[in-house]
Amino acid sequence: MATNESKRAIGFIGMGLMGSRMATRLLEAGYPLTVFDRTKAKTQPLAERGAKVASSPRELAEHVVVIMVSVTNHAAVEQVMLGPDGVVGGLQSGSTVIDLSTISPQTSRHVAAEVSARVASMLDAPVSGSTPQAEQGALIIMVGGDRETYERNRSILETLGKEAFYMGGNGMGVTMKLVVNAMLGLGMQALAEAIALGEKAGLEKNRLLDVLGHMPVVAPAFKAKLENARREEYPAAFPLQHMDKDFGLIAALAEECVVPMPATAVASQISNDERARKSDDDFSAVIRLMEELAGVPT
Amino acid sequence: MATNESKRAIGFIGMGLMGSRMATRLLEAGYPLTVFDRTKAKTQPLAERGAKVASSPRELAEHVVVIMVSVTNHAAVEQVMLGPDGVVGGLQSGSTVIDLSTISPQTSRHVAAEVSARVASMLDAPVSGSTPQAEQGALIIMVGGDRETYERNRSILETLGKEAFYMGGNGMGVTMKLVVNAMLGLGMQALAEAIALGEKAGLEKNRLLDVLGHMPVVAPAFKAKLENARREEYPAAFPLQHMDKDFGLIAALAEECVVPMPATAVASQISNDERARKSDDDFSAVIRLMEELAGVPT
Amino acid sequence: MATNESKRAIGFIGMGLMGSRMATRLLEAGYPLTVFDRTKAKTQPLAERGAKVASSPRELAEHVVVIMVSVTNHAAVEQVMLGPDGVVGGLQSGSTVIDLSTISPQTSRHVAAEVSARVASMLDAPVSGSTPQAEQGALIIMVGGDRETYERNRSILETLGKEAFYMGGNGMGVTMKLVVNAMLGLGMQALAEAIALGEKAGLEKNRLLDVLGHMPVVAPAFKAKLENARREEYPAAFPLQHMDKDFGLIAALAEECVVPMPATAVASQISNDERARKSDDDFSAVIRLMEELAGVPT
Amino acid sequence: MATNESKRAIGFIGMGLMGSRMATRLLEAGYPLTVFDRTKAKTQPLAERGAKVASSPRELAEHVVVIMVSVTNHAAVEQVMLGPDGVVGGLQSGSTVIDLSTISPQTSRHVAAEVSARVASMLDAPVSGSTPQAEQGALIIMVGGDRETYERNRSILETLGKEAFYMGGNGMGVTMKLVVNAMLGLGMQALAEAIALGEKAGLEKNRLLDVLGHMPVVAPAFKAKLENARREEYPAAFPLQHMDKDFGLIAALAEECVVPMPATAVASQISNDERARKSDDDFSAVIRLMEELAGVPT
Repeated sequence: MATNESKRAIGFIGMGLMGSRMATRLLEAGYPLTVFDRTKAKTQPLAERGAKVASSPRELAEHVVVIMVSVTNHAAVEQVMLGPDGVVGGLQSGSTVIDLSTISPQTSRHVAAEVSARVASMLDAPVSGSTPQAEQGALIIMVGGDRETYERNRSILETLGKEAFYMGGNGMGVTMKLVVNAMLGLGMQALAEAIALGEKAGLEKNRLLDVLGHMPVVAPAFKAKLENARREEYPAAFPLQHMDKDFGLIAALAEECVVPMPATAVASQISNDERARKSDDDFSAVIRLMEELAGVPT
Repeated sequence: MATNESKRAIGFIGMGLMGSRMATRLLEAGYPLTVFDRTKAKTQPLAERGAKVASSPRELAEHVVVIMVSVTNHAAVEQVMLGPDGVVGGLQSGSTVIDLSTISPQTSRHVAAEVSARVASMLDAPVSGSTPQAEQGALIIMVGGDRETYERNRSILETLGKEAFYMGGNGMGVTMKLVVNAMLGLGMQALAEAIALGEKAGLEKNRLLDVLGHMPVVAPAFKAKLENARREEYPAAFPLQHMDKDFGLIAALAEECVVPMPATAVASQISNDERARKSDDDFSAVIRLMEELAGVPT
Repeated sequence: MATNESKRAIGFIGMGLMGSRMATRLLEAGYPLTVFDRTKAKTQPLAERGAKVASSPRELAEHVVVIMVSVTNHAAVEQVMLGPDGVVGGLQSGSTVIDLSTISPQTSRHVAAEVSARVASMLDAPVSGSTPQAEQGALIIMVGGDRETYERNRSILETLGKEAFYMGGNGMGVTMKLVVNAMLGLGMQALAEAIALGEKAGLEKNRLLDVLGHMPVVAPAFKAKLENARREEYPAAFPLQHMDKDFGLIAALAEECVVPMPATAVASQISNDERARKSDDDFSAVIRLMEELAGVPT
Repeated sequence: MATNESKRAIGFIGMGLMGSRMATRLLEAGYPLTVFDRTKAKTQPLAERGAKVASSPRELAEHVVVIMVSVTNHAAVEQVMLGPDGVVGGLQSGSTVIDLSTISPQTSRHVAAEVSARVASMLDAPVSGSTPQAEQGALIIMVGGDRETYERNRSILETLGKEAFYMGGNGMGVTMKLVVNAMLGLGMQALAEAIALGEKAGLEKNRLLDVLGHMPVVAPAFKAKLENARREEYPAAFPLQHMDKDFGLIAALAEECVVPMPATAVASQISNDERARKSDDDFSAVIRLMEELAGVPT
């Protein structure tokens, strides 16, 4: 098929909540796809739709020249990229690695240097948005790395995201992601404190939430979270534990760059709360936590 | 003129930045208007356009049955309403007072009780938005008081605001306003900490601000503030000193209702900073303050 | 008895936990004493030991020229001093009022001005220490007012306290008290966070508390509180609700003087916690609260 | 000399501010001493007083069976212990390593496991106190490791410290040290906020500091710091940068153990301030920082 022939083959590592959806979207857009996940069963749905399955990241890298990675944290990125049977071991000269994971700029640069040493290029390209945006190709992607590499892979990125912003050299994509998630974490704390105040001060809860939904001070990213507060259910779209991990990355970057972030630090301690951490809930469950601390009757 | 005859005469007290614009809008909409300001010169522009000028709040209340008040703080509200020559002294039975000021729910209820004692009604109806919204009738109004009084005066309120949300009994309008401004204050602190982090971590400033402008985590209310950060100029739309006053009202309400607001408290301390307080700048100048604390080179 | 004759008669208003002990100590030291409390039964123990009982603060002020006040808060001070039948109504020219209460410098100066208008003098002389120190005359007193008045009443003050520090003009005694209590409140939060960390990180609780008791970083004021943590019982010596009141006075003074106190603000929010506020416990119960937030098994 | 013969030879690694003083003290107490520092010149003063100088940590470990380590951070501990020519490479069976450094419990346990694998034992024995206490043998030592090893080496530890508290298994010494330094860091912030409040509220600075020096709410560890505030000079006894490093270790331990420490987090952000970090000053220089933020005139 003509369309397919013009599209480069892509290898995709990591079939988690986000990865499987992004890989599906690439497949649907006509990219020949090879996938890998350390839990082989997770590759099954893609295989059924025509993707090849690699036996290791290394084998995958030996067969495709565009390799995308979407894994949980820096340990997973290092394992998949630099470990035995890792991508770097099989990397062909001129390949491009696109790492969609949210990790520290430091780790990202370290991995990018190893990729460069194999005469290949890496983009750090973390995404903003959760599963619905991944399905619809409506993610926002923040990209760091060589600009020429960015331009060359733009059509792939734009299959996944409605925007793919170029932010600068290696590590600048994940840096921008951490800036955005600092606002996400402290913004949610702001919403939680405000809702607890409103309820305790006597506003009728549904009315409070309705009106907040119309307010320009409430970010679009939080509108859907008001419904969680209304139903007192917090199904994970962006789990509290991921927010907690990102607060850790933000704190480390702030420490390294010597940036005081006092309010962000307080918000991160609240989400550090044991009851919060035990939970598999969405990060918006801090609304419930602040309601509890305030003694809002339920 | 038919239209005018069907519109009730309105008295408007307080010709400040917001009040003068709202009064003008009412005049343009055809409401017969009587105005008062303790600085008589400030009534001049309205007088030239056909408004009557009252010599005191009391005299104003003796002549109109809808009285709107837009003044700075609780001391001004108490002076205008309860002081010698105040509104309450001249209030006609069946009148309606609409207080547009941002004061504490406690003070608002106290004044409303005095109004009730004169067989009249009060709505607390603080507005969200600044001067451009006041001119365009695009404010958001949060209303507390008797529902029937709210319904009866809805057309007046909707001349000023694109929305006039009914929040509950007396004091619930200002309560909602404080909930909203808690988010405004802590949200701006979140933006300021995030921008300082991004700049110090090496993101190009204009690119950082451009991309933040596209992010769903940045509330619409803050989009215009990104331009302040870009130009490093913070002309007052909502002055830092007003935010500071509101932080005080929020803290008092939280204390009274026993609601812990740790991140809000930290943000309020930052805006309490001497350099910040000296300033006549907009509350978004906390961006500059956090940049300074982080040692962002300028 | 010669000693008694040389001692001036004292009037003492407020027979609470602290006041009754201080009054007893003055009686034991040989000062002729007249007492008042709005709950007359509370004057009984002193009356049995020879104190006269006044029927109102005013009557008390008509009969003695040294008047001491130990009441709960600014409303009580204003009532006792400026209310109908208050001290000021009966004040003899040349009298001295010594206010032992912890109130805001602003209120204290306002009352002092009313006293001055009657050609009398006031000292603000709040005390540091709790009931055992009051019984043993081991309080620390911080004094504001006219230095000559301070010197003239020093022997009375030193009957109550092992130290009576002169801090400056009216209001400077209570200012110093708020400085000290800022350290008390945030210091206790520091201890609570550190204990929770130690327990959760695996230190044996008794060992942890033993060793903290030997550490120069733990203030003498907190040594006894370690025993509360050990027994998991927090009987009120200085109730949480008083600390909470003082956090409010500290915040108001910091706001007025434009002093950012971010860590103090966070500590005050924690003590603002609903579960904390419900409690009649000692302010050291924040240790229990931080243990709960950290999920320390009990 | 009989006394010397009964004393075991000690190897001491790290001739920094603290290490050189502790080593000198051991020499004066009659312990045969071999020393090492990567900067050889730093061993000179000890060599002149009779200490042998080893050419590497490994060589040192080959010749003595009690090895003490006092270095800056985890990287230095790992280098000295596990690096090429490190202690572990030369360790004799039955040796004891006493690590006086402040590092994370995690790193300490990792190194201890490597030592155990060589049939030797490690104690983590960080010290509290600064250079004067090191000279006078008045440090406080918190010890983790095997209790029998602790008992066997107690006389050595008590040559350095007036107390050597046994806290539990490997890592519990450094855990206790981090608990203590959490109080040190937040306690200093409390003092700094309180001093800034007092000055700005009009207390005469010297009087304020005098009286704080008598207050049971001021920990003994902070008494000397009041003199720094008085002279507005902050010579490093415990440098701000070390406090900053320890705040990082505390945050990591709190994160790992899921302990919310909101006030500690705020204090760590303040010390994270660029101006603070640039400084070689003592950690008590946060007093100056809070004075500046409050706009205290100097």
